[in-house]
Amino acid sequence: MAKIKVHGLPFSSCTARVLACLNEKQVEYELIPVNARAGDHKKPQYLSLNPFGLFPALEDGCLTLFESRAIIKYLAKKYEGQGCPNLLGSTVEEEAVVEQWCEVESHHFNPPCYALVSQIIINPLKGGTTDEAVVESNAEKLSRVLDVYEDRLSKSKYLAGDWFSLADLQHMPFLHYLVNDVGKATLISSRKHVNAWWEDICSRPAWKKIAVHMKFPSK
Amino acid sequence: MAKIKVHGLPFSSCTARVLACLNEKQVEYELIPVNARAGDHKKPQYLSLNPFGLFPALEDGCLTLFESRAIIKYLAKKYEGQGCPNLLGSTVEEEAVVEQWCEVESHHFNPPCYALVSQIIINPLKGGTTDEAVVESNAEKLSRVLDVYEDRLSKSKYLAGDWFSLADLQHMPFLHYLVNDVGKATLISSRKHVNAWWEDICSRPAWKKIAVHMKFPSK
Repeated sequence: MAKIKVHGLPFSSCTARVLACLNEKQVEYELIPVNARAGDHKKPQYLSLNPFGLFPALEDGCLTLFESRAIIKYLAKKYEGQGCPNLLGSTVEEEAVVEQWCEVESHHFNPPCYALVSQIIINPLKGGTTDEAVVESNAEKLSRVLDVYEDRLSKSKYLAGDWFSLADLQHMPFLHYLVNDVGKATLISSRKHVNAWWEDICSRPAWKKIAVHMKFPSK
Repeated sequence: MAKIKVHGLPFSSCTARVLACLNEKQVEYELIPVNARAGDHKKPQYLSLNPFGLFPALEDGCLTLFESRAIIKYLAKKYEGQGCPNLLGSTVEEEAVVEQWCEVESHHFNPPCYALVSQIIINPLKGGTTDEAVVESNAEKLSRVLDVYEDRLSKSKYLAGDWFSLADLQHMPFLHYLVNDVGKATLISSRKHVNAWWEDICSRPAWKKIAVHMKFPSK
């Protein structure tokens, strides 16, 4: 069976999400770096894999997929019987709760995190500046979102229940950047249950292997 | 069996998404209107159903769910054997492609559409004004996204393949507002395959019953 190919870059949060899932499911893969400096992700060959020109894209035999959150669901289903169990939940109701918190990540957690990482890391890397007002308003938005997480995580160890699921995994790349790279670690550490959750999930061996490579390039 | 309860409002795009899915699956439900003018969605009783204070929230016996995109997946799985078939795909690979285009809706299509609806309809309803520069930039973003859809829909009748799936359904509320309420119908009508897709899906009886009630309140 041909090895799964992931086209992307280790510091891309969406690539890291897919690689973390592959590690959790103990699936061998080949990471094919995309030469972003040369703009290869906007050229026809890469656009045939991901028409939005973003990272990552996955090739599994004849199947090509983009959108990291769709890819991790595919991997969790296809490799249900190996590696970390129960990433999707084991009943229709459990699956619904996993999906619910995955959607919370997409629509509530991701937008302010993306804004913080863009402003604080990516803009300066591209020679631009950080808009402090945008940083402030997104830190406030994220703080209100994390209040909801704190309440949830006071009632269950992980987001979907008392087991680690895709809902937790989906959050990890931006949590990593919040804590380590954008100077917003207190958003996590100031919340008892959110902090315990992060300490737990970031110590997973499958994640540690990915996190060590999440370094933004220099200018 | 207790009837499913949907707490929300007919003009809320996320409520409409859930109601359309219930109709497609021929599931009886009760719509419980939320008194938004009185701020009931920010009060403890509603926050216990949806901690973000947004529409909708679903009650199905003991299960409470929020996030419309998670709810429609739950309904499509639970009622797999009735109503519109195959909303989720029938193989792991088909499911992955449905998920992929659902994620495209969430991360590429929804943000500029939401900005357009906010600027053109919601801001004036709240006594504010429309920022034309924001309208312009989001119409451009959406146009580039719809170019990807045009290419995709030139190769398959629906987003995930040659059958109607959740990926198509997930788009319907904002497509409806784009065409009917924000003066951006040409974004759809100027693209042959996108237009044919929209004409097809908006003529579905399950959708027509919902669309007729999608009227924004007056000031």
